[in-house]
Amino acid sequence: MKQYEMIEFTFHAPAPAGSQVDVDLAGTFLKDGRAVQVKGFYAGGDTYKLRFLPEEAGAYEYSIRGACLAAPEAGRLKVEGADAGRHGPVRADGAHLRYADGAWFHAFGTTIYALVHQPRALIDETMRTLSNAPFNKVRLCVFPKHYLYNHNEPDHYPFERKPGAETKDLSVKDGQVFPANPSTIAQNDTWAVERPCFAYWDALEDRLKQLDAMGIQADLILFHPYDRWGFATMPLEDNLVYLDYLTRRLSAFPNVWWSLANEYDLCFAKKLSDWQAIEEFVAKNDPYHHLLSCHNCFKPWDAARPNVTHVSWQSKQLHRVAELMRRYNKPVLIDECRYEGNLPEFWGNISGEEMTARFWRATVQGGYCTHGETFLPGTGKASLATGTGAEEVVWWARGGRLNGESPARIAFLRKIVESLPGPLEPMADGLGALFGLPDEQVREAIKAMPAGRQGFLSSFLAMDPVERDHFLAVEYSYAGHCGEDAFLYYRNDQCCARVTLALPEDKTYSIDVIDTWNMTISRAQTGAQGKARVEMPGRPWMAVLAVRER
Amino acid sequence: MKQYEMIEFTFHAPAPAGSQVDVDLAGTFLKDGRAVQVKGFYAGGDTYKLRFLPEEAGAYEYSIRGACLAAPEAGRLKVEGADAGRHGPVRADGAHLRYADGAWFHAFGTTIYALVHQPRALIDETMRTLSNAPFNKVRLCVFPKHYLYNHNEPDHYPFERKPGAETKDLSVKDGQVFPANPSTIAQNDTWAVERPCFAYWDALEDRLKQLDAMGIQADLILFHPYDRWGFATMPLEDNLVYLDYLTRRLSAFPNVWWSLANEYDLCFAKKLSDWQAIEEFVAKNDPYHHLLSCHNCFKPWDAARPNVTHVSWQSKQLHRVAELMRRYNKPVLIDECRYEGNLPEFWGNISGEEMTARFWRATVQGGYCTHGETFLPGTGKASLATGTGAEEVVWWARGGRLNGESPARIAFLRKIVESLPGPLEPMADGLGALFGLPDEQVREAIKAMPAGRQGFLSSFLAMDPVERDHFLAVEYSYAGHCGEDAFLYYRNDQCCARVTLALPEDKTYSIDVIDTWNMTISRAQTGAQGKARVEMPGRPWMAVLAVRER
Repeated sequence: MKQYEMIEFTFHAPAPAGSQVDVDLAGTFLKDGRAVQVKGFYAGGDTYKLRFLPEEAGAYEYSIRGACLAAPEAGRLKVEGADAGRHGPVRADGAHLRYADGAWFHAFGTTIYALVHQPRALIDETMRTLSNAPFNKVRLCVFPKHYLYNHNEPDHYPFERKPGAETKDLSVKDGQVFPANPSTIAQNDTWAVERPCFAYWDALEDRLKQLDAMGIQADLILFHPYDRWGFATMPLEDNLVYLDYLTRRLSAFPNVWWSLANEYDLCFAKKLSDWQAIEEFVAKNDPYHHLLSCHNCFKPWDAARPNVTHVSWQSKQLHRVAELMRRYNKPVLIDECRYEGNLPEFWGNISGEEMTARFWRATVQGGYCTHGETFLPGTGKASLATGTGAEEVVWWARGGRLNGESPARIAFLRKIVESLPGPLEPMADGLGALFGLPDEQVREAIKAMPAGRQGFLSSFLAMDPVERDHFLAVEYSYAGHCGEDAFLYYRNDQCCARVTLALPEDKTYSIDVIDTWNMTISRAQTGAQGKARVEMPGRPWMAVLAVRER
Repeated sequence: MKQYEMIEFTFHAPAPAGSQVDVDLAGTFLKDGRAVQVKGFYAGGDTYKLRFLPEEAGAYEYSIRGACLAAPEAGRLKVEGADAGRHGPVRADGAHLRYADGAWFHAFGTTIYALVHQPRALIDETMRTLSNAPFNKVRLCVFPKHYLYNHNEPDHYPFERKPGAETKDLSVKDGQVFPANPSTIAQNDTWAVERPCFAYWDALEDRLKQLDAMGIQADLILFHPYDRWGFATMPLEDNLVYLDYLTRRLSAFPNVWWSLANEYDLCFAKKLSDWQAIEEFVAKNDPYHHLLSCHNCFKPWDAARPNVTHVSWQSKQLHRVAELMRRYNKPVLIDECRYEGNLPEFWGNISGEEMTARFWRATVQGGYCTHGETFLPGTGKASLATGTGAEEVVWWARGGRLNGESPARIAFLRKIVESLPGPLEPMADGLGALFGLPDEQVREAIKAMPAGRQGFLSSFLAMDPVERDHFLAVEYSYAGHCGEDAFLYYRNDQCCARVTLALPEDKTYSIDVIDTWNMTISRAQTGAQGKARVEMPGRPWMAVLAVRER
């Protein structure tokens, strides 16, 4: 038994007579006076399991009791220190992410929504792709997905059907494929939520383990609206049964994150109070307090809520990352910002250059960006996978191969970020600092600026919020720093022939010019101090990195 | 004497004893019961002039009186019809622009702020460049300009100095070059505004005539803040004397437009009431009602004001053009949206691709965009001009040569636009129609959309104004149409492999795929009706044009 690795207890007893979710099996794990309470679950046949994730090495006392045990069990566990490369769950530390062992986690995510609902050959191809990709986080759904380019029937569903219930195709019933109509009433006459489909959950766990073995976090999406089976329209009562089983089974996986939803605000059968109950239930029933967020279409979920560990925005407002970091003091993940591809739909047809640029914009401020790839099936770059023939396979939903131009550049960026002495913080000065502030604070901030700048900005307050935001977005300097040890400037679409850095006067720096697209790093200066003028090639997508010399 | 060409009457009399601006010389030109009242001006030496721009062919009766005439003059004028290619002043017609003779004017502007303050060799080079460029409007300043990359002393100023006044360098006095400090008090101890410098005005008129001969409108900027001489800080009383002379001299030029300011809101010595007085004075003293606008830095000037003929925005919000057209029912000119170049400053370093894209974004909606070129002096693409050596010459301020990549593409766009049967109107449907509407109207608009779309949008109203604007900006479909005769779609950064057009069912169309960067037009279909699926190359900056077959 090792630190950061799941320990599993198996028991044999007759199947539950009633609910297969709300089973009577619970354990306590005690170390140094701190107890972790966990619940077990029914795993099918005559098998019950109870899982525990030890976050410390050393001796634990444990006790397990429940109706499926002849008698309570108790004993001692000796947990060895973590294997090399095992860091434990990722958690928030201020506006950054770090593993339980303290190592920084720089999130570089991708999106494969229906990963677990694919044929085996495609899943294998996807895992091979991920093993060579720069991504350390995957967004994936528990429920199957029904949406454009994504219609295959899965082998299994999370639950068994109710007796006599047949598969309904709600997309036909509603006369529209997406999303469920706002008039949808929460109901469930199909799915027996108290009877999990064990083959489904076994397969899901295999995926989580495969990802974990590659050092990839599973940002597990608990609900979504792209549905033809009725999973999106179950009432709250059924949703909580589902979450009860999910948290009992999966909480002890070191690499799970809870994403309450993809596009919560398009799940029209759920009210805001339902979402709040779901959030509360997950937070309360996860003994390890894994990362928890909720992803929007239109209106961002309120990241100030105490259960919410980080900002997970669908947004193209990459210039707001620093503002959000300051506002919430939580990590900011732009978990959807359009995908590299060539679909007719606007959300799936940005260039590799633009996808790469979005990563840089978010990352240099100290935020995190999420990738997706959406090439149209039948076109040269579509993600055809071994054994799947010419059917519709788009990475963002089903996996397969990556054919875009951004992953290599994201790998290049990741390497640079991981070479820095710590996580990046947004620059504290400049126009960026005026984002999202009330007028009085803007006035104060302007007063603190150099005299020449003050004049320029005194008309700022005449603008309405939309005008201000656009102004700042365009003038925004994408930049961040690690204290005075490193300064990273991303010039975005600016084709500068020259830039001038304002470095500390009392330290010396080596300055590199980085071509983020061509993936080159050129040493521009050594021994730089204070104002440093750097010649640039006059192309877009350039960055400048100044690292303190020792 | 010909329609749309300035008629000039010259009189000789002693120089005015007092003000050389407020001279007693006025004329009336009468045709078909409609009278145009004009004022004359003192032109130096013993010369007085009075000018009239006939907008109709035929017989006029006129009378001229004033202190500089021995006796009033009266007579008849026979004005012949306009020469081919002479269309008269440009005016607004709803949200579009047309010449006095009814021909549409599709504005394709550029920016040469200090054109008239340059050495002759540079001006000649600039005029040669313009004669081969796609631009039919130039933004240029009356006063000399003091700003980055733009410090040369002009040969002449609009006024003589006050007795004993020396040239002050306010940039040194203030310890900052730009812009004048907000605490600046309106004052003028240098310039004798009632004594125009005739050499200056003669030269300015030569420039206006040169532009007119090339069919280029002069968008004349009457005030700006980039100043070291004291022109930006004169009190209102002096400003009105200056405008009195200006309107007397220049109103009869067919190609002048009045741009009250460049960045009015950075002119810190002028109050809002000063600007309103300036606006009112110019509108009242221009007998021909030339186009009149006011250009902002931060806060757009209120284009709803009756004297304002069109929207002249500095903005990067190209997605708002259609909204502004609907709101004001006036032409929308994005008169500054960053410039093609390689300066360190964000406003002067977008790529040729991006400058081109901004023209397309504005133009397909029925708006108009303005170009500028800003290559850093000393770098390969800087605008070195004959005889000016290696000094700082940047097109956007001083002229010279165009070295950017966008002008050829702007010429390509202009040719396409001018081939259309009329001006483009924004599409009436889709998300774009929700821009800037109050909630109640958004609700109504959503109700009118197809059922599937309604579901998708029912969460729209939860967003705050900034979130809404960004959402719409990203989802924005840049497109326009000429009734049912032509539909033009610009896909902007979208790399589509396919698009589907929704054309009228009862007409047939020829469809072209346009590569706006490589300047190619490929016929994709003929005889298209209704839903037309068009294969696309999966690159950004593509457009699709459907033209009705006859």
